[in-house]
Amino acid sequence: MTGDGSLWIAGLGPGPAHWMTPEAAAAIAQASDVVGYGPYLDRLPLRAGQRRHASGNRVEIDRARLALRLAAEGRRVAVVSGGDPGVFAMAAAVLEALEEGDPAWRALAIEIAPGLSAMLAAAARLGAPLGHDFCAISLSDNLKSWETLARRLSAAADGDFVIALYNPASKARPKRIFQAFDLLRRRKDAATPVAFARAVGRADERIVLTNLGEADPGLADMSTLVLIGSSETRFVARGAARPWLLTPRSYGAAR
Amino acid sequence: MTGDGSLWIAGLGPGPAHWMTPEAAAAIAQASDVVGYGPYLDRLPLRAGQRRHASGNRVEIDRARLALRLAAEGRRVAVVSGGDPGVFAMAAAVLEALEEGDPAWRALAIEIAPGLSAMLAAAARLGAPLGHDFCAISLSDNLKSWETLARRLSAAADGDFVIALYNPASKARPKRIFQAFDLLRRRKDAATPVAFARAVGRADERIVLTNLGEADPGLADMSTLVLIGSSETRFVARGAARPWLLTPRSYGAAR
Repeated sequence: MTGDGSLWIAGLGPGPAHWMTPEAAAAIAQASDVVGYGPYLDRLPLRAGQRRHASGNRVEIDRARLALRLAAEGRRVAVVSGGDPGVFAMAAAVLEALEEGDPAWRALAIEIAPGLSAMLAAAARLGAPLGHDFCAISLSDNLKSWETLARRLSAAADGDFVIALYNPASKARPKRIFQAFDLLRRRKDAATPVAFARAVGRADERIVLTNLGEADPGLADMSTLVLIGSSETRFVARGAARPWLLTPRSYGAAR
Repeated sequence: MTGDGSLWIAGLGPGPAHWMTPEAAAAIAQASDVVGYGPYLDRLPLRAGQRRHASGNRVEIDRARLALRLAAEGRRVAVVSGGDPGVFAMAAAVLEALEEGDPAWRALAIEIAPGLSAMLAAAARLGAPLGHDFCAISLSDNLKSWETLARRLSAAADGDFVIALYNPASKARPKRIFQAFDLLRRRKDAATPVAFARAVGRADERIVLTNLGEADPGLADMSTLVLIGSSETRFVARGAARPWLLTPRSYGAAR
């Protein structure tokens, strides 16, 4: 171990370069080694001499260990994450690997470059659905029992939060999104606005606006962020264009 | 009304230029008129010929109406927001003004450039506190009754979410943060990790790590983001440096 290695955990944002921060771009540019999910690495303008370490989507912890090992060998490593590395992503994976790994890893210089998380990009496209209190729930945790998820969804409905569902269509748990909608339909008004925001900012972007009663959960794939309104979320018409989605800043304000 | 006006609602991120997206920077650069809270405008490298419209912090709806009026007059307007305009900020204010205002405003070309919200920047500094399900609650809504806020905080505790508290120290409601901590102490373990992340990324950044039992809510000012862990959030030691804060990606996973 040379002692001068370093590790950046950098968020790429939802896809387009204009949504990546200068800090994340600089972290990637200075790296000797870039570690990440293959399709994410393919998007990056890596320079000659930079080593790419591409891996599949389901091995975050292995990717984290590889990044830590390379940094411990003295490499300048950037491990990249779509969206924000702090939200259901690589920052937690790296710290979990750090906890369980070589004690020397704890002395490494590690920095995290935040990125635009999918719900912020989706919200910007939709209007202002996150204008008041909201929560973010991941459906892709294979270790989370349905009881735990149901507890969280119920609490989110009881608290009348706007709800952002991440990773709604896990291959391992394809029924979860249907179960989630069934639960929310029992606890929230059928007229509650719902948005399926797929691949926002990318060529295959697709937005579907609907309501809780009519929504087809099958529209959600792994590139989709699902937003479910609070009791105050409403549509704002704008002529021929798709209406805006608005959760006002004040709770209980007269319309 | 000339019909060729436009309005960008642009997020500046938490402060430093390396956390502003290229899209937001471009939206500001192309504007003939930049509207915003004075100290935010002071941070921007405005060019000669651009008109500044600075206002105080408590008049978001007036600022929104001004931006819409200027755009309707044919100006290229950028209205700026700290952090992300979609989170408790200007995007909702503009859509509220749009709902109530001149019907012609609905035909305006409006676009939203998302930004890094304070909780993402704070999380990046702290490690991975948002690695699993979380919610964001604003304490600054003067129209939200204590009963409504208590309902949301209780639901967040019942759901075992990580909790991000925005605008914790409203001048109009200085006791709210103390009431909020009292409520959470009755419902969550005293050992739950808590972070006060003040002005992250700016010269006066200050991070305090503590736990729910020992936390002094008086540490929170209007530049502070308060993070309160779930039952799974823990500290990860790293030698002499401040420990990381981690909420693992899987719920109920063995440590």
